[in-house]
Formats: sequence, C-alpha cells, structure tokens
Amino acid sequence: MAPQVTVDSINPKVIECQYAVRGEIVILAQKLQQEIQAKPEAYPFQEILYCNIGNPQSLGQKSITFFREVLALCDHPAILAKSETQALFSADSIERARKILDQIPGRATGAYSHSQGIKGLRDTIAAAIEARDGFPADPNDIFMTDGASPAVHMMMQLLIRSEKDGILCPIPQYPLYSASIALHGGSLVPYYLDEATGWVLEVSELKKQLQEAKSNGITVRALVVINPGNPTGQVLAEENQKAIVEFCKEEGLVLLADEVYQENVYVPEKKFHSFKKVARSMGYGEKDIHLVSFQSVSKGYYGECGKRGGYMEVTGFGADVREHIYKLASVNLCSNITGQILASLVMSPPKVGDKSYESYIAERDGILSSLARRAKTLEDAFNKLEGITCNKAEGAMYLFPRINLPKKAIKAAEEVKTAPDLFYCRRLLNETGIVFVPGSGFGQVPGTWHFRCTILPQEEKIPAIVTRLTDFHKRFMDEFRD
Amino acid sequence: MAPQVTVDSINPKVIECQYAVRGEIVILAQKLQQEIQAKPEAYPFQEILYCNIGNPQSLGQKSITFFREVLALCDHPAILAKSETQALFSADSIERARKILDQIPGRATGAYSHSQGIKGLRDTIAAAIEARDGFPADPNDIFMTDGASPAVHMMMQLLIRSEKDGILCPIPQYPLYSASIALHGGSLVPYYLDEATGWVLEVSELKKQLQEAKSNGITVRALVVINPGNPTGQVLAEENQKAIVEFCKEEGLVLLADEVYQENVYVPEKKFHSFKKVARSMGYGEKDIHLVSFQSVSKGYYGECGKRGGYMEVTGFGADVREHIYKLASVNLCSNITGQILASLVMSPPKVGDKSYESYIAERDGILSSLARRAKTLEDAFNKLEGITCNKAEGAMYLFPRINLPKKAIKAAEEVKTAPDLFYCRRLLNETGIVFVPGSGFGQVPGTWHFRCTILPQEEKIPAIVTRLTDFHKRFMDEFRD
Repeated sequence: MAPQVTVDSINPKVIECQYAVRGEIVILAQKLQQEIQAKPEAYPFQEILYCNIGNPQSLGQKSITFFREVLALCDHPAILAKSETQALFSADSIERARKILDQIPGRATGAYSHSQGIKGLRDTIAAAIEARDGFPADPNDIFMTDGASPAVHMMMQLLIRSEKDGILCPIPQYPLYSASIALHGGSLVPYYLDEATGWVLEVSELKKQLQEAKSNGITVRALVVINPGNPTGQVLAEENQKAIVEFCKEEGLVLLADEVYQENVYVPEKKFHSFKKVARSMGYGEKDIHLVSFQSVSKGYYGECGKRGGYMEVTGFGADVREHIYKLASVNLCSNITGQILASLVMSPPKVGDKSYESYIAERDGILSSLARRAKTLEDAFNKLEGITCNKAEGAMYLFPRINLPKKAIKAAEEVKTAPDLFYCRRLLNETGIVFVPGSGFGQVPGTWHFRCTILPQEEKIPAIVTRLTDFHKRFMDEFRD
Repeated sequence: MAPQVTVDSINPKVIECQYAVRGEIVILAQKLQQEIQAKPEAYPFQEILYCNIGNPQSLGQKSITFFREVLALCDHPAILAKSETQALFSADSIERARKILDQIPGRATGAYSHSQGIKGLRDTIAAAIEARDGFPADPNDIFMTDGASPAVHMMMQLLIRSEKDGILCPIPQYPLYSASIALHGGSLVPYYLDEATGWVLEVSELKKQLQEAKSNGITVRALVVINPGNPTGQVLAEENQKAIVEFCKEEGLVLLADEVYQENVYVPEKKFHSFKKVARSMGYGEKDIHLVSFQSVSKGYYGECGKRGGYMEVTGFGADVREHIYKLASVNLCSNITGQILASLVMSPPKVGDKSYESYIAERDGILSSLARRAKTLEDAFNKLEGITCNKAEGAMYLFPRINLPKKAIKAAEEVKTAPDLFYCRRLLNETGIVFVPGSGFGQVPGTWHFRCTILPQEEKIPAIVTRLTDFHKRFMDEFRD
C-alpha cells in the first residue's frame, strides 16, 4: 500500500495553526540569502537584514560575559580547581559556578532534574521575584521551561477542552498565542488594543468582547496580556493593570501574563510592574485569582534565545490542579539544565561589590541604551514616510507601524491573491533585503495594514536601513499613489 | 467571582494522561528523602536508591570529557584564543569548538537557530547516519529537538485527529507514548511483546491487533517500535525488523522508530540496525514508506539527560506534509543550541588519531562494559528470587522482571485499593529505599505483575541493592506466601 499520510489526512488543527514570524516572508528571505551567496550580484543588496524576529544575538549583539563564564564552568566543572582557570574567568563567576553546582543534586549538570527545575535554582528565582515585587514568591510555584513557548502551550493544554473554550488575546498579538490556541483546539477571543492612544488596553473592550463571546456560547477561561507589548511595544500603566486584575477577579478568569520583556523599558515615564505585584498590592492572594507569569532568557538585555531558558510562576490554583500541571511538566521530564542555570543568572546578576559588577553593568546598560536609541531612530524614520504612522516603542523589541496603503496597491495585491501588507513586505524584501513581518500575522483591525519591525539590527546598520526603506517607500508610493 | 479553574473544569485529556516514571512511587521517594535528611534514623536506610528512571548522571556516572570541553568552549568562545586555554582543554576539543562555531551563523550560540536546528550540525548528523547505515541521509530530514520527547509529541500532534485515530504501541511500553497519545486525544492500540521468548515482537500479533482495531472503527496511523526495548531491554533481530517494515509498507503505516538506545547493546549476538537501514536494504525508498527515527543525547554511554538534545530523522512524507512538520517545529522557534551541539558530538565523537581519542574510548568502554556487568548481576539476582523471572537486558538500560505474586499479597493490595505491583514497590521503597516503577505504568498482560528496574546504580552499590532486595523479598514472601 502507498504511504497513507497526506495533507488531507493530518490533524486539521495543525493545518489551521499559523506562525507568521517564521512564515512565508522568512522562507523567501532564506531563499534570497542562498541566491546571494551563490551569485552576489543577483540582487541590488549584499545582505539580508532580518528585522522579523526578536533574536538579538543573530544580529551581532554580544552575550553578557559573566553569564557565559558561569555556563562554561558549569558545563566543565573539572577545570574549576585548575590555576589557569583563575586567569581565564572572573573570580565571582568561579564562585557562582561553585554555588550553582552545590545547588544541583550530585553536582550533575547532565542529569534530568526535578520536573519543575532544580530546587536551588528555583529558590534563587523566587528570591529575585520577591526582591522585584516586594511580595513573597514560593519556589514551588516556579516551573522552569525551555523558553516561554512550552509554558504557554502547557497552560493552553490545561485550560482548553474544546472549541467552546475561549482565550481572550490582544489584537495585535504575538502569534505564539493564536498558534497554541489553534493547536489545542480552542477559540481565540480577540480584544483590540487602541492604536490611536498608543495601543492602550481598555477594560471596556475586554468586557465587550467577553460578553460577545458568551453570547456565542464560548466559555472564556483566560486573558492573555503581553506587557511590555509584542508586537506593539506599549508598557501598561499601573492603574490600567489594576483594572485588568479586577476584571479577571470579577470574571474568574486566569490571567496569563506574558512578562518576558520586563527588562526592556525605554522611556523614563513608564516602569514595569508584574501582575503578581499589582494583584498582591490590591490585597488579592492565592485564593482570589489564578495568575501565571511567563519569563524567558531570550529577551531582556541578555537576549539568550538559543539557550531556551525560562519559567512560569503559577499561583492561585488548587493543589489538585497543580498536580496535573506538574504531570504535564513531567511528561517531558525537565527543561534543559543550561537554560535553567541561565534563568537563575538573569534573575540574579552580579551585585554591587562583586568583581564583575562594573563590567556587567557597562555591558547591560550599553545594550539597553542602544536599544532605546534604535527604537527612537526607527520610530522617527517611519513617521517621516508618506502614509505611515508609528507609535512609540516604550518597551519590548518592536515597532508596529501602520501603513495607509493606496487603493491601487491594494488592488495590485488582490490581483496576485496576496494580502496587501504581505504584498508590501515582499516587495520591500525583494528590493532591499529588509525583512519585516506583515501585520496580518499578528492580527489588526480589519481594513488597516501594518508590519512588525524589530529594533535589533546593530546601531551602525540603522542608517542604511532607514535610507533603503525610505527610498523603497518613495518608489512604492510613486508607483501606486492614488 | 471565585477562581473558576478546578479539576472538574480542566482538559479531561490532561486528567487521563498518566506518567508512571515520575508518578506516585517517585513522589513518595522524594518525601522519604526529605524525612531522612531531617531525621537520619527515621528509616532503616540512609539513602534512596533511584532505580526508576534512565538518568545515569544522577547516579554518579561521569560525563564524557571531550563533549563537555567542547560545550564549555562554545558557551564562552572568548577564551578560545587565550594561551591558558591550551593548558585546560584538549587540542581537538579546541579545534572542534572552532569548527562548530564556524557552522553557526554569526558564531552566535545565543541566537535562535533555523527551526530544524543549525544546518552545519545537521550536516554532521546526516553524515554520521550515512556512515552508520551505509545509505544516504539528508540534513533537511533532520529536526533537532529538546530530547526525544518533544519529537514524539510533534508526530502524535500531526497524526492524531480524534479518538478514532489509533497508534500501535508495544505493551509493555515507555509511558511517554501512552501519555502523548492521551494528551492528543487518540487511541492507543496495544500489541503485546512475548515475554516467554524474550520479549519478541511477533508480526502476527501486530496483524491481529490491527484487525481488531479496524473492526472497532479505529484508523491505525502509525506503529511505535522501541529498539532496543524500553522497559523490556530486547534488541530486535534484523529479520524481525524486515518483517515489521514489510507490515508497515503493506498497511501504509508510519513507522515511529524509537532508537534512543542505539548505543546500548550488551550482548555479542545482537547488533543494532536502524529501521531506515533495514528499509533501504529492502529496496524501500522515500516514496514507499513513512519512517521517523528518534534519537537523544540522554541515553547511549553519554547519558546527558539534562542537556535535552536529540533529533528525529523524518523520511517518506510529501513536501506539503513536511511543511506542516516544519511549522510545528517553528512554533517553539528551535531546540536549545547546547543540546544541538551535543547531538552533533555524540553522532561524531573523536576519531582514531584525534588527541582525545584514546581517553574518549576508555571513558566510553568503561561505561558500556560496566553497564553490561550490572545488567547481568541484577538479572541473575532477580532470577534467584522466589517467584521472579527476568529476561536478559540485551540492550537499553532496564530490566523488567515478572513477579508471580501470592494470592494473599494480591488480596492485601486490594484491601488498600492498590494495584498489586504498586503494593510491592511501595513496600520495597518503605523498607529498603529502593525505587522501582510498577509494571502497571508500562502496561502488562492482564493478571501478570512486573516492575522496571534500571541498571544504572553505580557498580559498587549493586551488591548492597541485591542484598537489601533479597532480604526484603524473603520477608515479603514469608508474610504473604500462599
């Protein structure tokens, strides 16, 4: 018999799932890159400029020295006692590696750990959360994961029973959420962020969408909030967060707080507050609200995407539900230990008085201040382009400009059976090598068009990007202006 | 409103999923360990002996030096050029680290990679598969994953549409399969391995179970084969593998080959053959059969469980189905880079003439020959116990002895509402500190009772385990003998 698995006989949930961040435009970019390698004169540019994904080190950002020193020593502890090691590594990285190894049963960095992660590392993380928030954190509430994505999947798997279960998600959203909801067979209940006011999250909008979902027979189980926002870059005001907590409390919803950009805030007037801190400051404890906070080593100033470290802090669930979350974690045994160690490091970096402190601070602040400058330069550049408006990136790593496409361009896109924003991004890529992700991958108000652009290309490349983009955009508008 | 998520309102598939390897007995063991730490005289033993899980480094097995040297250098490449590094690391580990860094775009070990894993590392793995099998392997068929578990989940997610889709699984089986099938809402179609003949996989049994499933309205989509076997330790004969391939070909089934123990074969009369090699040697190519092979860095002689590295080699699917597998890989962005590097290393260890070759071989053979001795010692010990029979561990890391429990013991277990094998294992743990997993977690012929015991405790501890087990077993039989 011929092999039986065809695209018509695979799980339709897999077919429905979309993931634009690595979708069509990126596949085209990879193809162009290969063509350029084979034939450098094939295109009017020599380099693909990947602005599609929050992957800082792929664009030349350096890793933080202290973190990598500790990881190397934990990978090969045999050198800890050697005299040459003193010359190669900072004194506090050696001390930290020893401390971490002491926290690992049998000092075995090659063993599966407790399904939630190594207890000693969870102690470190819980202490860091306490210091950050001023409220207690319990290491038993920490589930360490291979980046934030598996943690999100785990919660969706727990909560979604059928397409009658809904998850409130921002539009625009990071497509991990729509993909995970599709894979688990649930319904995405959209709520729109208000672009006109800088992507504000209005609780009135949450209420409206919740009512509409209910009237369609959907049981809404959870609210996803991404703060700082992806792809929108806004940082929520504390009063706004309180209203969101109150809404979840009133409706009995799980608050799924994507807080992976907690270290990425670029404007002095805004500050990151964890939802747990906000809820606790309102007097809401364990019994009042289900709250899950996601954190990752991939973002922040460290940008260690390839290490796949992260955790979720899970509070407010009964012991019996917790047992099932533990079981889900157990089925994959544990997250990778290198990522676990790194998660403890980013939550507990060198402190005043440590040998590495000054160099660490210089590295950290160098990255964060450069990101802030890049965000501003790109925002200003977008706002100078005909028909484009762009909100400020208060935080995170992205701009999500709106483009008022001429009717002629929309028609040209329709003629090639392409969404207009994809049409623009594809032309941009083919003519300049710049990779943006079309707004349709994140969701947008119907009839509006956007794209997502990371602020991550190295600072010296930004002027060239601005020039190429500006020239392209002029040509595009000259071709299609109504 | 009170929080709404209770055990009655979570996904019933999550509730149905079981994972015995980290189940009740292990939770009890962790509790005893804490009690002993607090009060060493609490139990008649000072140490919990974890024989429940294939986690060698947690029991003192050392990591392979060369692999860890390369990982440390890739974590902190800044030291590659320093003179002290020459004194601390072997020359070929430095060379290999440089080569691997050259394979990584931008030498960025902290960047997300291609969703399938770094292309250069997949080239290395494909070349190693070719050398192993004598048939071509394509790096584009390799999907690198955080251990084998996520790869298995990915295939189940792809194939299972509803409870009407069935997956043929061995009984006994490794509970990852039953857990994953339950989580994805499919039906496990059991086929029994024949204990009397050393856990032989009879194709007549496959045919019988397939027919029965069909007559129950189940569409069987895939066959899981674990070779070498877990928990059963058998190594399939090549002729048997050919018959299995023929069966999958005839029925159009996906052959899901769990080959994570490919380096763990302990008897001279058996040899590991990959299913891909067997299929290709029969003349079956890409168009003839769907074939997926799972490999992991957690097993073999390296036992690097905590690194969560692995891959699957996916062949025989159309380009359109492959696109959906790629999309599933993309949703989690990529597997951890440390695990990716390690997967390339275990598939391409030092070669004759390399500086580390001799020490590497000594480490490798030391571990493998010790494992073979431990397997034999434990097998012999089990076979000496009243009412216990134990097949040979030809490969993998486990023994799965059968225990003919006295009726009185079965009755005593029923009185406390406990499966008889769990009853035995719980008593064993409480009286000796030895942790076995009850056979019911893996599946067994109804009315028979087993447990799984790893062969991993350090060799010097084996005599004490045998003594404690023997003493306990005598007492148990004296108490319950009919």
